Amino acid sequence: MHNQYVAKSRRLRSTIYSSRIENQGVTSYTIYNHMLLPAAFQDSIEETYNHLKNYVQIWDVAAERQIEIKGKDAYQLVQLMTCRDLSKAKEGKCYYCPIIDENGGMINDPVILKFNQEKWWISIADSDVMLFAKGLAIGKKFEVSISEPDVNIMAVQGPKAFNLLEKIFGKEILDLKFYNFKYFNFNNSKHLIARSGWSKQGGVEIYVEDSQSGLELYDLFFEEGKEFNVKPGCPHLIERIESGLLSYGNDMDINDNPLECGMDKFVKLDNDINFLGKEKLIQIKKSGIKKKLMGVKINADKINLRSAINLTIDDKIIGEIRSACYSPTFKKVIGIAMILNPYFLKKDQFNIIIDNNLHTGEICEIPFV
Amino acid sequence: MHNQYVAKSRRLRSTIYSSRIENQGVTSYTIYNHMLLPAAFQDSIEETYNHLKNYVQIWDVAAERQIEIKGKDAYQLVQLMTCRDLSKAKEGKCYYCPIIDENGGMINDPVILKFNQEKWWISIADSDVMLFAKGLAIGKKFEVSISEPDVNIMAVQGPKAFNLLEKIFGKEILDLKFYNFKYFNFNNSKHLIARSGWSKQGGVEIYVEDSQSGLELYDLFFEEGKEFNVKPGCPHLIERIESGLLSYGNDMDINDNPLECGMDKFVKLDNDINFLGKEKLIQIKKSGIKKKLMGVKINADKINLRSAINLTIDDKIIGEIRSACYSPTFKKVIGIAMILNPYFLKKDQFNIIIDNNLHTGEICEIPFV
Repeated sequence: MHNQYVAKSRRLRSTIYSSRIENQGVTSYTIYNHMLLPAAFQDSIEETYNHLKNYVQIWDVAAERQIEIKGKDAYQLVQLMTCRDLSKAKEGKCYYCPIIDENGGMINDPVILKFNQEKWWISIADSDVMLFAKGLAIGKKFEVSISEPDVNIMAVQGPKAFNLLEKIFGKEILDLKFYNFKYFNFNNSKHLIARSGWSKQGGVEIYVEDSQSGLELYDLFFEEGKEFNVKPGCPHLIERIESGLLSYGNDMDINDNPLECGMDKFVKLDNDINFLGKEKLIQIKKSGIKKKLMGVKINADKINLRSAINLTIDDKIIGEIRSACYSPTFKKVIGIAMILNPYFLKKDQFNIIIDNNLHTGEICEIPFV
Repeated sequence: MHNQYVAKSRRLRSTIYSSRIENQGVTSYTIYNHMLLPAAFQDSIEETYNHLKNYVQIWDVAAERQIEIKGKDAYQLVQLMTCRDLSKAKEGKCYYCPIIDENGGMINDPVILKFNQEKWWISIADSDVMLFAKGLAIGKKFEVSISEPDVNIMAVQGPKAFNLLEKIFGKEILDLKFYNFKYFNFNNSKHLIARSGWSKQGGVEIYVEDSQSGLELYDLFFEEGKEFNVKPGCPHLIERIESGLLSYGNDMDINDNPLECGMDKFVKLDNDINFLGKEKLIQIKKSGIKKKLMGVKINADKINLRSAINLTIDDKIIGEIRSACYSPTFKKVIGIAMILNPYFLKKDQFNIIIDNNLHTGEICEIPFV
């Protein structure tokens, strides 16, 4: 195992929280939307996993950037980019949406926030959706303005999240429903809070627009959170794989379509909404998908996956594993893999070579838990 | 100074050379186009600087991804994205081109390679130009196909580069002119070689399409290069700043236009070519730019810049420094700064606070050397 440091520069943008998390002991970063996203703190990966599943963590996820689409044609542009039906989307709600190109290839899998028909935020995974939206808007002569507002999300995640949130925002926050958002007061500032987050342990994401107030809130969470054993944290590889939360760029990319990614319920093909790649997806649905994202369980006790590894049966490649970790729950390696037809139906035992050692594994459904 | 490791995953794509440079002692990475780009090796930054200016280095710059635009409307699409006049571009030549949006904002500053009127490669800096091109092509109904081919550039840079290249490719390579490209034979494979690179020390970039052959070539460079003191390297902060090579995302971004970036000679406003933002740039040129990229020299002996730092005169902000390093040539800190009007004309002395210490500096032209 070789480790390398991140070479910092203005191009790999720091967040408003970076100096705080560096004082709190962040030990590794990934880069996401040209921005620093914490990937680990001083505690071991199993310690942070257990902590997230039992207490509450504050995450710097400012790298989840917002693309704001505003103007008369805003809905039309947003709908054009996603195969999810947003024609009846409600104000104040969040929608997980595959963004696809003209071939049905995945460009991103953001959460889209509807403020009103003429104002939307696309809370993006790691690709420059703003450039795609700009290109389309220019080409189609849409009346929209497209920008990346200065919003720095902090997530509060874990089973004790609402205990902490209630102390600061009052009982009102307990009424916030899953994937809804609303503005809440903190001191003299308002913060957009959505009941969402990149874990299945519960909590919210706070879309901080007023940086000064956001930093005061960040500090207060650590003050008031002591009784709940609050710690700084970040999206957690083990927890997210066990929960079946997909990661764009890891588990899928532009060479995969949403049907292959198991996103069927977010693909609307039978009404008259207009989006890119619709005809292509209708064709694909008819002829059947050639590969599918599946779970895999491998009889091994560690893996450090930095690129896809082939899975084989009798030396024939049946797919590739794209994300993986050792799972303390299953006491083996689990992962997310793109499996070829017909193997994703048959779920036979396969072989995989990890660090020059042969292991066996089996295909399963996601989520794992 | 806090240092953090890079958390590796499939999303931060490794290159075909990654395992080699990790064995050769790469110590830090930056991320560029969702890919690992080496940023430092074991030798000190001044040692690698002196080495690059005296010998020859092999760089893994596979993160300079290619966007291939092919088809009947390929020229029209490429020209639409850049303010540089490509109407008379020649086959087999490279063109440094600002790519801008409808407001004249910089989206990228690639080198564009013309194969023929219906096939171009855009060798991109760090932003998803493919998504911009796709959006435009869809919106405008252009007949083009847009893809990211599997090309992994290796650069050979330094004053001894052509000594090494001649040993392998013969005298023919010496005839390759600056910013021209041509296919050269190596064993049974052909490699596109351009006389270009992200240093001013001379050399080429090899656009490796045949990975197996490219890796053999990589290894052979180290075998045959011993007599020229060859080493692995990477784009060098000090050398590139001294040479005035701009870095997209560091020195400029979508909030800056090419006139503000000193790219006037790549902005064609007085003929009938059609590109985005043309009207806007004509207006800006008429009314005069409000800020400009300039060099700065600061009386300090070190800096670690990870985000912009304000420059002031009598507590008034006159601009911000965006890239910087200690220069062994000037024996002070030098950098690239966006300076407000009228200060970029007057070149007064300014103040800057680095690590809580006040320093003075002056504005100058780029390149420095």
